[in-house]
Amino acid sequence: MGSIDIPSEQWAQVVEKTGGRTFSPPFTLWHQATTANILPAVVYKRIPVQKPGPDEVLVNIKYSGVCHTDLHAMMGDWPLDTKLPLVGGHEGAGVVVARGELVKDIQVGDYAGIKWLNGSCLSCTYCMNGDESLCHEALLSGYTVDGTFQEYAIAKAAHVARIPKECDLESVAPILCAGITVYKGLKESLARPGQTIAVVGAGGGLGSIALQYAKAMGLHSIAIDAGDEKRDLCMRLGASAYVDFSTSKDLVADVRAATLDGEGPHAALLVAAQEKPFQQATQYLRSKGVLVCIGLPAGAKLSAPVFDTVIRMISIKGSYVGNRADTQEALDFFRRGLITVPFKTIGLSQLQDIYTLMHEAKIAGRYVVDPTR
Amino acid sequence: MGSIDIPSEQWAQVVEKTGGRTFSPPFTLWHQATTANILPAVVYKRIPVQKPGPDEVLVNIKYSGVCHTDLHAMMGDWPLDTKLPLVGGHEGAGVVVARGELVKDIQVGDYAGIKWLNGSCLSCTYCMNGDESLCHEALLSGYTVDGTFQEYAIAKAAHVARIPKECDLESVAPILCAGITVYKGLKESLARPGQTIAVVGAGGGLGSIALQYAKAMGLHSIAIDAGDEKRDLCMRLGASAYVDFSTSKDLVADVRAATLDGEGPHAALLVAAQEKPFQQATQYLRSKGVLVCIGLPAGAKLSAPVFDTVIRMISIKGSYVGNRADTQEALDFFRRGLITVPFKTIGLSQLQDIYTLMHEAKIAGRYVVDPTR
Amino acid sequence: MGSIDIPSEQWAQVVEKTGGRTFSPPFTLWHQATTANILPAVVYKRIPVQKPGPDEVLVNIKYSGVCHTDLHAMMGDWPLDTKLPLVGGHEGAGVVVARGELVKDIQVGDYAGIKWLNGSCLSCTYCMNGDESLCHEALLSGYTVDGTFQEYAIAKAAHVARIPKECDLESVAPILCAGITVYKGLKESLARPGQTIAVVGAGGGLGSIALQYAKAMGLHSIAIDAGDEKRDLCMRLGASAYVDFSTSKDLVADVRAATLDGEGPHAALLVAAQEKPFQQATQYLRSKGVLVCIGLPAGAKLSAPVFDTVIRMISIKGSYVGNRADTQEALDFFRRGLITVPFKTIGLSQLQDIYTLMHEAKIAGRYVVDPTR
Amino acid sequence: MGSIDIPSEQWAQVVEKTGGRTFSPPFTLWHQATTANILPAVVYKRIPVQKPGPDEVLVNIKYSGVCHTDLHAMMGDWPLDTKLPLVGGHEGAGVVVARGELVKDIQVGDYAGIKWLNGSCLSCTYCMNGDESLCHEALLSGYTVDGTFQEYAIAKAAHVARIPKECDLESVAPILCAGITVYKGLKESLARPGQTIAVVGAGGGLGSIALQYAKAMGLHSIAIDAGDEKRDLCMRLGASAYVDFSTSKDLVADVRAATLDGEGPHAALLVAAQEKPFQQATQYLRSKGVLVCIGLPAGAKLSAPVFDTVIRMISIKGSYVGNRADTQEALDFFRRGLITVPFKTIGLSQLQDIYTLMHEAKIAGRYVVDPTR
Repeated sequence: MGSIDIPSEQWAQVVEKTGGRTFSPPFTLWHQATTANILPAVVYKRIPVQKPGPDEVLVNIKYSGVCHTDLHAMMGDWPLDTKLPLVGGHEGAGVVVARGELVKDIQVGDYAGIKWLNGSCLSCTYCMNGDESLCHEALLSGYTVDGTFQEYAIAKAAHVARIPKECDLESVAPILCAGITVYKGLKESLARPGQTIAVVGAGGGLGSIALQYAKAMGLHSIAIDAGDEKRDLCMRLGASAYVDFSTSKDLVADVRAATLDGEGPHAALLVAAQEKPFQQATQYLRSKGVLVCIGLPAGAKLSAPVFDTVIRMISIKGSYVGNRADTQEALDFFRRGLITVPFKTIGLSQLQDIYTLMHEAKIAGRYVVDPTR
Repeated sequence: MGSIDIPSEQWAQVVEKTGGRTFSPPFTLWHQATTANILPAVVYKRIPVQKPGPDEVLVNIKYSGVCHTDLHAMMGDWPLDTKLPLVGGHEGAGVVVARGELVKDIQVGDYAGIKWLNGSCLSCTYCMNGDESLCHEALLSGYTVDGTFQEYAIAKAAHVARIPKECDLESVAPILCAGITVYKGLKESLARPGQTIAVVGAGGGLGSIALQYAKAMGLHSIAIDAGDEKRDLCMRLGASAYVDFSTSKDLVADVRAATLDGEGPHAALLVAAQEKPFQQATQYLRSKGVLVCIGLPAGAKLSAPVFDTVIRMISIKGSYVGNRADTQEALDFFRRGLITVPFKTIGLSQLQDIYTLMHEAKIAGRYVVDPTR
Repeated sequence: MGSIDIPSEQWAQVVEKTGGRTFSPPFTLWHQATTANILPAVVYKRIPVQKPGPDEVLVNIKYSGVCHTDLHAMMGDWPLDTKLPLVGGHEGAGVVVARGELVKDIQVGDYAGIKWLNGSCLSCTYCMNGDESLCHEALLSGYTVDGTFQEYAIAKAAHVARIPKECDLESVAPILCAGITVYKGLKESLARPGQTIAVVGAGGGLGSIALQYAKAMGLHSIAIDAGDEKRDLCMRLGASAYVDFSTSKDLVADVRAATLDGEGPHAALLVAAQEKPFQQATQYLRSKGVLVCIGLPAGAKLSAPVFDTVIRMISIKGSYVGNRADTQEALDFFRRGLITVPFKTIGLSQLQDIYTLMHEAKIAGRYVVDPTR
Repeated sequence: MGSIDIPSEQWAQVVEKTGGRTFSPPFTLWHQATTANILPAVVYKRIPVQKPGPDEVLVNIKYSGVCHTDLHAMMGDWPLDTKLPLVGGHEGAGVVVARGELVKDIQVGDYAGIKWLNGSCLSCTYCMNGDESLCHEALLSGYTVDGTFQEYAIAKAAHVARIPKECDLESVAPILCAGITVYKGLKESLARPGQTIAVVGAGGGLGSIALQYAKAMGLHSIAIDAGDEKRDLCMRLGASAYVDFSTSKDLVADVRAATLDGEGPHAALLVAAQEKPFQQATQYLRSKGVLVCIGLPAGAKLSAPVFDTVIRMISIKGSYVGNRADTQEALDFFRRGLITVPFKTIGLSQLQDIYTLMHEAKIAGRYVVDPTR
């Protein structure tokens, strides 16, 4: 392990003030939230490097993906307050440079990933059952604790993703949030190999990864999105069929027709950022089908007729981020070369530009930042 | 088997005209349906006795429960047309008096039950997977085929409930619909022995049976209903706690407080006939909890905030009637003396009076009719 | 559907006497059975064409695969008596030429497959739960009822495989037994996409199909067999690794080493015809691994140390043939072009030659017979 | 919480030398092990009180159950070496008197239980998936680390059982091993409420607890043991039927006959200390039944005919101790008053007498020791 030089100061991007909305728990009482018009500024500056506690590691972040959630955090879009000032980012891939005294199974020099779930108590009823994301003491990278838009970041050792040595740290970064999230959603769908799943928003960041995981898991996917460019992308990524919601005259009929027996898909994965699919997707599902909700349009509501839901035995499930086991499984698919995420890397110093593009919905694919520039 | 005298004519109660609403498929397009004010008449008259086909049995109905669905059918409340003229009823317990040539595993003289699912194709993808209620060719007793409000009724042999000889045909009748339905819902909840389920509408017909099945399945139940009379009933039937929604100042808090760790129940079973619980129950569920919808308030909609559903990983499931295996399992609990359904028996000739009471919401407990009078 | 000429007589291969062993139930009391040395003769002759009962179809067999089970039946190897005289065969693909009056969902002219499970009661507790192969009234093609080594064969309509029109009847034949069986075994293994399964006997008839299904289901497979020829075959069919048991000095270590973390595979599928793997495979399984037994070496016994099985939480499961849903699922993988079975077609009249080769263990790949010659 | 006086020295029972057998990994290669004839001595003496590490707690043991495993450890019966010198014991109920700096969710003064699994890494693939007992770094109380036969014992905070305040520490002690183990086994059986499970060795220490858990979980149990005294005990504890293997002329037939349909139980739980049931129980299981192995007779082997296992789709599963979630669930059944374990309490100083009785198989019920005397 030898001596590793860890500086006492580093470059970071810091959010000093969010968009302004504040919410009180319980979440279920919050008022209609909409994306504000004014994008706050993120400040590129020098801050101290932290030291890991006994059960923590310090990771030298080599690359960090930029996720739509980072924008939501800055905007204050969600009914959960962030830490302030805040270093955002939760898709950080790097190298362990220090560890606490209790940490044994991860070594200095190992590759590690810092993800949305920075830590959890590991002892409550949720953690015991592998639902760490539901832990009341969960620490969220780039939200309730500082994240990966800095050169050196801290995380609980038990929660750090173990990234295999043969992985490229630049391209693996987006797997740490987007990859895990869609993989978890596909598991929650209970769709089995050979069955069909609709992916709503298939041509977007999450959707294009979901199509690849679905294929690697033996699932057939019906990609739903708008336009011929997305059609080409989706078919290239392994979709079995494509339905263009912008031109379809009867989306329900078209999605059902894309299945061999016309009964509709066994499941649907909602990764779109609009509300409408949450109120429509149960209609084209096969009886006993499962709708998995992942996307979080600000203030959106699920809605479905009781009669149809009951007599066709439809299920609607929320799927949040994966747990630690899901993380390692999602990474293993990547390691085997089954998942490719198109990305563009720029310096961490230019993060504000990415937020601006994101805010204007002008991003196709994923941005990765390099903290050294 | 010897000779059994089967008459050529019999008494029956016949619906000649429903409440008037008609609907077209797909169900998902129907307009807001509300219970009409005018109760149609059911006609007590002599009709011919049918003969069973090769895969059918003829059952001499000894007792038949009267279910709220029978009223819905008469009123035309649902987006699915009934046969007309129609003999209603789908909780018929009796004795097999004739069988088709292909029927081997059920004998003349055996006890049998005719339930909501009168028959299905047994060959489609749904039937093959044990989801017979989702079969497109499903025959519905007292809805798309004649039911049990007559002295002799027909059903597909493979679908007839096998009622053990030690059961009392009068008291078992309500199990054939209400019992199976709540038992299925409890299975769909995925709640395991030792876990807690809220039963919404616990003091009603379905709810009071659900409490007993829950207890027999090792589940703890939180009964939710209104008033002290229902409280007494629920606690007597084995509920672990009672929450009175008519007096509670904060239903969500009160239901959560009724669980040991304050996290809320693992599941909730909606057997109420109102819409509100469908839009509220996810709030008091524990994270990763399951909401099972059974009741079918006319025109009701499910609704839940996307954010809370996703980050707490809530599931919402529709549960229709049980399949054939569920039927036999539900009957076995009854056979062992674990389920008691309070009922009052009157002559089939008085069916209209029951409908009137039901329409006025004046029924507590279950009515059973005796076709011989 | 117009007039189809069905002859009254046809060519068939008839077993008039099995190898001689007879057994009495219960199966669990039978004595050690070994494959006899003398191969009985099968008689090629003209026999009458049967007429379907009300719930049956008559299938004009176009092609029939020859399975090792057919040899076992002839030899009397198993503790279950066959019908005599017997027309063997249970991998028959053909066209429906007649159907009984109750058959509605399958048409004259449809493609259909007759498989091992010719029929079952569809009403017992096993059938209700989708375990039709466990039905006490199960009819076994080419064993307890006449099978597919004839031009026209009968089966229960509900059990006939629905073969999609785009399938080639010659190449689909082996799917109807070998394909379904390994697909079922893979499902029973509970291995999930991304996990690893060892296939013992991977280069044989069942094994080579199992490797393809495993890949299509997103599983990684460790092929275990002997020799470089089988190595090449297995790797070509998609195996992730190959372990040669004929040259391995420590099979347990080598199989474990073939997994990324050295813990061993999550499951193992035993399709070999020897007894040894049944007593060894639990050792290289990962803790909580599942051993699925499919092969039926005459008289073989499972054996495992209690201590290791308990503290490592190993499961050992028997997997018989698939049910009707498994059948349709297995066919769908074939339809999508994901499974290829190498076969050689000869005339039905030459069946005895195949048995001779099979008896001498000289068959690589699968034989298919054409009943028209 | 204030100041708690923790002495620096305490009374303990120390094993200084085991029975003498030693084993080498892998476990699967060990030779036939039999219980030695000579019982080693355990030494009652003063030893230092340890201090908890950052993630540990120190528990003042109030009561500790004595388990047959403690005897196995002393005798060196198993193919896994113990720590030496060793303080045995792994059913310790007490009060937390100190905790490490990282421990937050458990307070000084809380009730806590130290069980077989003293700690595990919480980060490996097994721990991540809730299979902590399979962790390669698992610490075993009274085996690889000092256990509960002392006044103050150490355990990893995340693994300590959270004992509710309303529980009696004396009577809860045996739940911490025996209770958790049988509860886990019942879960592993996959038997659902309303189904039937055979308990082999039902009148013994584990068996009599298993009968109570089975009942509380809605299962029907067939108790299998010898003699009328055990019959009375079993029936009193809620067994649905009793089969006396010492007088039965055909155990397989008798167990099957104890099920309503004669098909046999859905599962069987082997808690007996003999080898024979491991080789017989699959025979009386219903097709698709599950045999759960818990007992660990020294050197015993599982054995079953391949043919019967495959065509009846029997499963054989090893079940070790429960994980942390199972622990809390098992305790909750106890807390609700559903489980009663008969026990006799004596001073820790008399432990050798208990071992002597145990070695001579003269113990009925469970012994608990009080470390203060």
